[in-house]
Amino acid sequence: MSAETSIDPRTGAPYGVAFAPTTSAEVARIAAAAAEAAGPFEAAGRGFRAGLLRAIGDALEDAREQIVTVADRETGLGEKRLGGELTRTVYQARLFADVLDEGSYLEAAIDHAGPTPMGPGPDLRRMLVPIGPVAVFGAGNFPLAFAVPGGDTVSALAAGSPVVIKAHPSHPATSRLTFDLMARAAAAFGAPQGILSLVSGLQAGADLVADPRIRAVAFTGSLRGGKALLEIINARPEPIPFYGELSSLNPVVVTEAAAATRGDAIAAGLVGSFTASGGQLCTKPGLVFVPAGEAGDALVAAAVAATGDVAAPWALGENIGAAYDGIASGLASRPGVKVIAEGGPVPGEGFAMRARLLTARAADLSEADTEECFGPLAIIARYDGEADLRSALDRLPASLTGTLHCEDDEDDLAVELTEALRAKAGRVLYNGFPTGVLVSWAQTHGGPWPSTNTAHTSVGTTAIRRFLRPVTWQDAPEAVLPAELQDGDAGIPRRIDGRLMLP
Amino acid sequence: MSAETSIDPRTGAPYGVAFAPTTSAEVARIAAAAAEAAGPFEAAGRGFRAGLLRAIGDALEDAREQIVTVADRETGLGEKRLGGELTRTVYQARLFADVLDEGSYLEAAIDHAGPTPMGPGPDLRRMLVPIGPVAVFGAGNFPLAFAVPGGDTVSALAAGSPVVIKAHPSHPATSRLTFDLMARAAAAFGAPQGILSLVSGLQAGADLVADPRIRAVAFTGSLRGGKALLEIINARPEPIPFYGELSSLNPVVVTEAAAATRGDAIAAGLVGSFTASGGQLCTKPGLVFVPAGEAGDALVAAAVAATGDVAAPWALGENIGAAYDGIASGLASRPGVKVIAEGGPVPGEGFAMRARLLTARAADLSEADTEECFGPLAIIARYDGEADLRSALDRLPASLTGTLHCEDDEDDLAVELTEALRAKAGRVLYNGFPTGVLVSWAQTHGGPWPSTNTAHTSVGTTAIRRFLRPVTWQDAPEAVLPAELQDGDAGIPRRIDGRLMLP
Repeated sequence: MSAETSIDPRTGAPYGVAFAPTTSAEVARIAAAAAEAAGPFEAAGRGFRAGLLRAIGDALEDAREQIVTVADRETGLGEKRLGGELTRTVYQARLFADVLDEGSYLEAAIDHAGPTPMGPGPDLRRMLVPIGPVAVFGAGNFPLAFAVPGGDTVSALAAGSPVVIKAHPSHPATSRLTFDLMARAAAAFGAPQGILSLVSGLQAGADLVADPRIRAVAFTGSLRGGKALLEIINARPEPIPFYGELSSLNPVVVTEAAAATRGDAIAAGLVGSFTASGGQLCTKPGLVFVPAGEAGDALVAAAVAATGDVAAPWALGENIGAAYDGIASGLASRPGVKVIAEGGPVPGEGFAMRARLLTARAADLSEADTEECFGPLAIIARYDGEADLRSALDRLPASLTGTLHCEDDEDDLAVELTEALRAKAGRVLYNGFPTGVLVSWAQTHGGPWPSTNTAHTSVGTTAIRRFLRPVTWQDAPEAVLPAELQDGDAGIPRRIDGRLMLP
Repeated sequence: MSAETSIDPRTGAPYGVAFAPTTSAEVARIAAAAAEAAGPFEAAGRGFRAGLLRAIGDALEDAREQIVTVADRETGLGEKRLGGELTRTVYQARLFADVLDEGSYLEAAIDHAGPTPMGPGPDLRRMLVPIGPVAVFGAGNFPLAFAVPGGDTVSALAAGSPVVIKAHPSHPATSRLTFDLMARAAAAFGAPQGILSLVSGLQAGADLVADPRIRAVAFTGSLRGGKALLEIINARPEPIPFYGELSSLNPVVVTEAAAATRGDAIAAGLVGSFTASGGQLCTKPGLVFVPAGEAGDALVAAAVAATGDVAAPWALGENIGAAYDGIASGLASRPGVKVIAEGGPVPGEGFAMRARLLTARAADLSEADTEECFGPLAIIARYDGEADLRSALDRLPASLTGTLHCEDDEDDLAVELTEALRAKAGRVLYNGFPTGVLVSWAQTHGGPWPSTNTAHTSVGTTAIRRFLRPVTWQDAPEAVLPAELQDGDAGIPRRIDGRLMLP
């Protein structure tokens, strides 16, 4: 097991302190500490955890300049993108504090004792409680918002579940810095020891997922990596939930009318979207259905021109860049697939990726053509009429998102294509591009396999549900009930005898 | 593959029509029909499905006498218990209709477009949509409430997911009768063909779980059976959710004070609970912690006397009776375990089970002593002080329920023991017995592995969540939005810009 060192993707040069992989014994000690902390952390209550999340948000905000600088050197994503990502990360922590204050997420319900068709019914009081210690596998492509201080971590902490984070090897310094900031903030706030830990190394990740004290796993990464963790979970004596965000092609459909009306704007938006952050986004639009014919030709010509102007972005790491080149070359050599544009050349040093635009006939698309290519590449699939389009859509794997560009007077077509896209996605969007996932109450970042393996979102407030389980207290003395289930106004929405009541 | 025939457990004699196992080709045809029906069934809307569930409830109620007679002959559970179970089954179907009318289950949320800390935000509208065709494995011990017309079926139909039911072999005639009643009611109500199907046979069940068109599996049965289905799911190219209700010991704790104050009543209630329905209940109290000393001795003596009076109940089938005898004999021969009471003897014919009460020291309990024994058997574990009790509780597997008998002035002890029980159960109840699971809004029937493998309940209104997944529409034209997400009052609770609003 080799130690993990920071590497500057702009030069390929390693720098900084190497972090040794966490040993199996240390992982076991950390998992035990997490289990030990679970009770006190839950008992500290919603108000405490809301305060903790705000303190964490403040600590990250206060270190903005340092975080962005460290993350940029390690990832090459650029200070603008990383500054925006930090804003989102801080907002996310604070939003989960709001979720705790509001309290709906508990799904609190009280059925008073009384007659039922089945005879006298008991007093039943239900709410969600923390699932227990959670293992979070940070993503490489979002060193902040989906990594150590990211959505999985803060939604699990909000739920009241201690978190052990497996740092992504592509940004050890960012992981360590953000972890230290969070851990210091948590300690200063008086949080129980053990609610937040960091491990590093492949074996440590495997040990963590196998550890009996870990009660759920959240993972953002490759389909292959996700499958490997699923195998470990399936071999546990006690299976646990696995929330994987794995792979996504994110099809975009452009109608004939939309291509005719605003093909240039769509082309510009598309190239911006598939090359943003080097195309290293789980919502990158990888496959774009453009109609055959003149309007489509013009759109494609504009996309070709725009792609030619794209300077080669930095890959997050050497292996990402190599994988991109491999998959891109493989796609380009598939029968019926043609490279129609390339971006600027890669410089002599560092891990840059050349943007590529490919094309094929929609009718020819095979399963091999729909492999996710992580990086600045998109395939334009030309379709010949609606039947051709529908048939191609039906053959696609599921994605996190599906996008439709259509015109105002195409309602019937929009309804029909929405059905086709919705069957294969967790978010359907219109006349925009799928990159950029707003953290909010109504967001869904999840979809049918292989985009995720879950019926939950990993972005937005409802992500908290992944780390909770229901418990019902029957005929319980007041003293043993959580505050949220005691008589009187609990200050949160509750369902009383079947009727939802606001505080 | 042998055909399934009804067998009268009171005589052991087969009777009636044998049902041939469903062939693999037929399972594939049925799954395809379910997938075909999914779209129209969802499009029919909540109001339609509420009406359908009420029509199904009415059809079952109208055939009450016939259903109870047929089920009693096949299961030996008795007309009183089965009449109660039918009442619950009908109520359950109607309650899910109420859930549809009320609409909270959709978790509808609208975030209007507007400024956010990350820049301009889109219009996001989220709600839950049907997950797709569901395979339901009916239980043997509840031929109505957990079988063909049971909670899994009606909660999946409520969600808008077509259902394919694998009939339990212990009651083929009851399965066929209730299926025909439901299918006729659905057809008369105008429901799409394919939303409700029945298959039979072990291979058909395996085929169903492996079928790519099946999107979730609900199973109530043995841990071994559940693990076998999980293996099939893990081998699918696309894994799907498995909601298993698998095994449960349902520990009961009696405090010293409770034993002293009302030991006789606890003993009577306990024996009634562990022998009800022949002990063939997933919430049967299988392990009872009674304090060492005089008060505990008196409670045990009363339980011994009451057990002696229990007439041997009928097993649901020959294999259940044989498994009961095998596990009961195994437990009785464990070191430190003693049989202290037996119920009335088994008659010369049929599949009866002799009730048995065993005892052991809590400190001696090993993992082998905590195997679920499906049938009229309980183990009384004598504990010597709180530390001894806590240590034994900590070593138990998780269960669906945990029960505490305590006195009014024991709040501190009750809080402490509630923590211990809650860590291992989905329902904690006080001064009662766990058998009898009310179908209601605040119920939880689910707990940590091995009681279930899910963070959901299979009884009560929130069981519907298992068959739904979230979708978000972004910047969608009004025409493509579901009615529940369009502007204006949708008649259901919704979260608008983060604020929960009632209709």
